[in-house]
Amino acid sequence: MKNTSALAETAALWAAVRFTADGLVPVIAQQHDSGEVLMMAWMNREALEETLVTGKACYWSRSRGRLWRKGESSGQTQKVLALRLDCDGDTILLLVDQTGVACHTGRRSCFFNEVGPTGEITVVSAPLVTPEALYGAEGHSHP
Amino acid sequence: MKNTSALAETAALWAAVRFTADGLVPVIAQQHDSGEVLMMAWMNREALEETLVTGKACYWSRSRGRLWRKGESSGQTQKVLALRLDCDGDTILLLVDQTGVACHTGRRSCFFNEVGPTGEITVVSAPLVTPEALYGAEGHSHP
Repeated sequence: MKNTSALAETAALWAAVRFTADGLVPVIAQQHDSGEVLMMAWMNREALEETLVTGKACYWSRSRGRLWRKGESSGQTQKVLALRLDCDGDTILLLVDQTGVACHTGRRSCFFNEVGPTGEITVVSAPLVTPEALYGAEGHSHP
Repeated sequence: MKNTSALAETAALWAAVRFTADGLVPVIAQQHDSGEVLMMAWMNREALEETLVTGKACYWSRSRGRLWRKGESSGQTQKVLALRLDCDGDTILLLVDQTGVACHTGRRSCFFNEVGPTGEITVVSAPLVTPEALYGAEGHSHP
């Protein structure tokens, strides 16, 4: 069988990255200049390879069970400026340039529910666009 | 049995947070002022509650199978300034004030392995202190 993989089997990455039993690794996306943490998602080996080769963030959607090319339906893509593996190889940090918003609710960041000391929740940011503007009238569920 | 829980069962947090089947939630720790992403770790319900009540980061160590009060052996504690849950409740962002370094290698951040387009790895930051200075001569494994 032809090996269509763009990265060599011997690449240092494959020896260093530690996927879960499900073949996934958690990925934190951070806006490269503002430092804002935008979202956390998952990649499998194929998504990780596509991200490195194309320079655009591609995740694995656990709910849809398929590759999730960030922005494929909303246009809100992430250009990848750096990809860093942590000390024990089980988490990735992506430094990205986010077009528009990262969150499916229309907010810049997914982390908008601030939890207070007694467990109360306050929403600390507002949507910049409506989900309808991002995904059309039929809407969109979380990937 | 006396309920020793500091947070009410009815707290909004418990309705919103979605633990994995193992009872854990991934937590990103970010330095509040510089924006640097320091590390990713996990909390169970008890660790999350302790973090909220004490204002100091407490994780669940999967390798040790016990609560991991960050800095308990190294002194490198994390004061928690904010705790935010993401849009679908399955990831937490902690804004912290990190004393010293977050990484057990003596680096400020755990994300020091930069992965290039062909999968090569370059170490992009150096330790600020030695692991021996942090943990003594017997050393320390990743929590």
